[in-house]
Amino acid sequence: MTYFDAASSAPLHPVARQALVAGLDEGWADPGRLYREGRRARLLLDAAREAAAEAVGCRPDELTFTPSGTAAVHTGVAGALAGRRRAGRRLVVSAVEHSSVLHAAAAHQAAGGAVVEVGVDRAGRVSPQAYAQALGEDGEGTALACLQSANHEVGTEQPVAEVASACRAAGVPLLVDAAQSLAWGPVAGDWSLLTGSAHKWGGPAGVGLLVVRKGTRFAAQGAADERESGRSAGFENIPAVVAAAASLRAVRAEAAAEAARLRGLVDLIRARVPRLVADAEVVGDPVRRLPHLVTFSCLYVDGETLLHELDRAGFSVSSGSSCTSSTLTPSHVLRAMGVLSEGNVRVSLPPGTEEAEVARFLEVLPGAVAGVRERFGAPVAEAAPRGEAPEEDGERMVDALGRRCPIPVIELAKVFGEVPVGGLVTVLSDDEAARLDIPAWCRMRDQEYVGERPAERGTAYTVRRTS
Amino acid sequence: MTYFDAASSAPLHPVARQALVAGLDEGWADPGRLYREGRRARLLLDAAREAAAEAVGCRPDELTFTPSGTAAVHTGVAGALAGRRRAGRRLVVSAVEHSSVLHAAAAHQAAGGAVVEVGVDRAGRVSPQAYAQALGEDGEGTALACLQSANHEVGTEQPVAEVASACRAAGVPLLVDAAQSLAWGPVAGDWSLLTGSAHKWGGPAGVGLLVVRKGTRFAAQGAADERESGRSAGFENIPAVVAAAASLRAVRAEAAAEAARLRGLVDLIRARVPRLVADAEVVGDPVRRLPHLVTFSCLYVDGETLLHELDRAGFSVSSGSSCTSSTLTPSHVLRAMGVLSEGNVRVSLPPGTEEAEVARFLEVLPGAVAGVRERFGAPVAEAAPRGEAPEEDGERMVDALGRRCPIPVIELAKVFGEVPVGGLVTVLSDDEAARLDIPAWCRMRDQEYVGERPAERGTAYTVRRTS
Repeated sequence: MTYFDAASSAPLHPVARQALVAGLDEGWADPGRLYREGRRARLLLDAAREAAAEAVGCRPDELTFTPSGTAAVHTGVAGALAGRRRAGRRLVVSAVEHSSVLHAAAAHQAAGGAVVEVGVDRAGRVSPQAYAQALGEDGEGTALACLQSANHEVGTEQPVAEVASACRAAGVPLLVDAAQSLAWGPVAGDWSLLTGSAHKWGGPAGVGLLVVRKGTRFAAQGAADERESGRSAGFENIPAVVAAAASLRAVRAEAAAEAARLRGLVDLIRARVPRLVADAEVVGDPVRRLPHLVTFSCLYVDGETLLHELDRAGFSVSSGSSCTSSTLTPSHVLRAMGVLSEGNVRVSLPPGTEEAEVARFLEVLPGAVAGVRERFGAPVAEAAPRGEAPEEDGERMVDALGRRCPIPVIELAKVFGEVPVGGLVTVLSDDEAARLDIPAWCRMRDQEYVGERPAERGTAYTVRRTS
Repeated sequence: MTYFDAASSAPLHPVARQALVAGLDEGWADPGRLYREGRRARLLLDAAREAAAEAVGCRPDELTFTPSGTAAVHTGVAGALAGRRRAGRRLVVSAVEHSSVLHAAAAHQAAGGAVVEVGVDRAGRVSPQAYAQALGEDGEGTALACLQSANHEVGTEQPVAEVASACRAAGVPLLVDAAQSLAWGPVAGDWSLLTGSAHKWGGPAGVGLLVVRKGTRFAAQGAADERESGRSAGFENIPAVVAAAASLRAVRAEAAAEAARLRGLVDLIRARVPRLVADAEVVGDPVRRLPHLVTFSCLYVDGETLLHELDRAGFSVSSGSSCTSSTLTPSHVLRAMGVLSEGNVRVSLPPGTEEAEVARFLEVLPGAVAGVRERFGAPVAEAAPRGEAPEEDGERMVDALGRRCPIPVIELAKVFGEVPVGGLVTVLSDDEAARLDIPAWCRMRDQEYVGERPAERGTAYTVRRTS
């Protein structure tokens, strides 16, 4: 089995494992107690905090360990918003933040706050100018801004340092979700809060970190206790915290060399996939990106089925495709980028991935995609236009109601060859993915996407044949 | 080193350690993923949930794993209160709940809710009748009631089943904090919510559990995600959860025999301490109690100094004494019971404690107490009354302002012998512990505690010599 989903959770680093097992012996007692076992636990906790702070680039007393990266984000966003309540109730986020940030934003909105989303370009990147504008005139009314260091689905790095400068200028604190990038290095720029998650860098589950720079207003919300500066309640998980700090230090020692190596392997995937798989689109910034992550989408493919095929062939990857999500909506990241979502595959290489494994993946992928396409009856080669007269009203209708991704696009492609140049095809669909994938298909096929309108059931998407 | 503080955190059970290490290999991936590693993680999580639910006596889908017992309590209280918001904003708790419950109550109060505290008797036990009364006429306006299964400081078991019946009758859900008792068995009675903490039963840190019975209104508060039924956000800590469930099952298998054995050792301590140490008071219910826990207080002793002495002698115990707490107030539990707080020692025996260790503790204790008393200049044997005339106004004044526990009581005892029968002594003190310890001293000495009144600085506590 080859595991290519490090962005979900990285396998435990050997150093983390050693440190965790040692921590079970030495760090199980309550660090708040004065007896020997308690003092020993306290020493371990203090040392872990110092090591983690050094890796992050902050003071130890600015760093709180939390039970997860998600908890760090939820606590950080809620605490920073409450601390700045008098400044206003606006929260600015990018449209491609991790769901933990968006969930915190939703909770803020549910409590009467306002959320402003900053869009991204087709590479998934925010513009520092657009972000600065969203902060409002002199940051008026904006309590907090959030920006990830790099996107978890497509790997695109965000211009954090520039956005942090804009935030400073506007007097708005910036919270950086650094979950995907902390393994590779500290986050540059003058940010105010930062969050991370140990199991993303080869540490154990159960440890996140929240950094709140001195001078940042912060008011922890909900019930608290005296642990972790009142910012994360509950008995400290010292064995896991020790393992998290040790593994962060260990991956950082290997980061430069490993990043260069994995970057080469990802470049190979980025270059080969479009050549090996017809109608595949590699998404995300090709250069300003995480070293180990690449995402592509394949027309006429159901992401979940493709994942099953790849799993059977021995590869564990993930997907932002609508079809794998329990909510049946396409990934908000791909939607914000306006790129194809169907047949979406994210490959994120864990440290130590070998070239042979990537080569084998590239060997297996085309057959897996072809198999899925065949199963879904996707057009193998689209028929040449036959120049028939358009149907009445000049519009050919395709009823794909009740059919899920990728069927609506497949049905569109099937009839498209029968439509004359200048003719229209309208697809009726109640699948959310169609909203993203029909325009994406048009772009990939150089056809004109006319637009959508509500229909009696679902939505009508209209395409004009231009060639 | 002999560790007698299992109630703070129990050493890791060997089964927990094995399960945790195995879980690191098998359970590190995201259980929400469809590939092999994810499916394997999901199976482990499901199996752990089933095992834990069986031990607790609930359905697996009623049980949520949380990052700590504290998180379980905070989430449970907030969610149950919100779910019953339309029923009212009253929260009923006992006066001796764990701080996590009281912190959740404080957060409720800060948000405009009302908190009603039910007092306890001198054994630390609530009366079911008083509890039922606190629920109000037909539970009118009461959203939630909380009662611990057994007290964490003095070991007294609460009448949970009777209180649960009263709650049912009033239509009020009862949340049981079972952190201290889950190792010994399930909680009887028709409760609605239950919380627990794995590191209290020999499981690892980082795992709590929250049970919400079907039919209980519950609305999780704050930001959420799709994990753990939306009740506990963040990446699941599967290795720890697996270890928690395995160790709960393991300690339960040993519970009956171990409880009987430890109960005998605690009975030994309960019987011997008052004979070995002058002016020591064993507190908590002698019969309806946790098997492994006993608490006593010693007059004229600073708890923190005594803990240091015992630590030097090789024993790790804890204290609810004012003097160990960073807030410098006596334990709210001892205060609610109205018992002596100074020189407080809690002994909680981990499974496997040997009789020889307890015997050695009883050997060491008298010398440790005597050493501390000597250091503080405590009266060795109180002087016989000398029948002198009382001072002007018939009142002898002792100025203990700025002096911390146990000094105010020591100063009282020092002058008491010089006061004639019928005479008054007034102690001026700004130490919170005096409020508890001066009346307790009177009770132990069979003297009359007249009362307290505010003074220019601190409080004036007056005692009348009756014999």
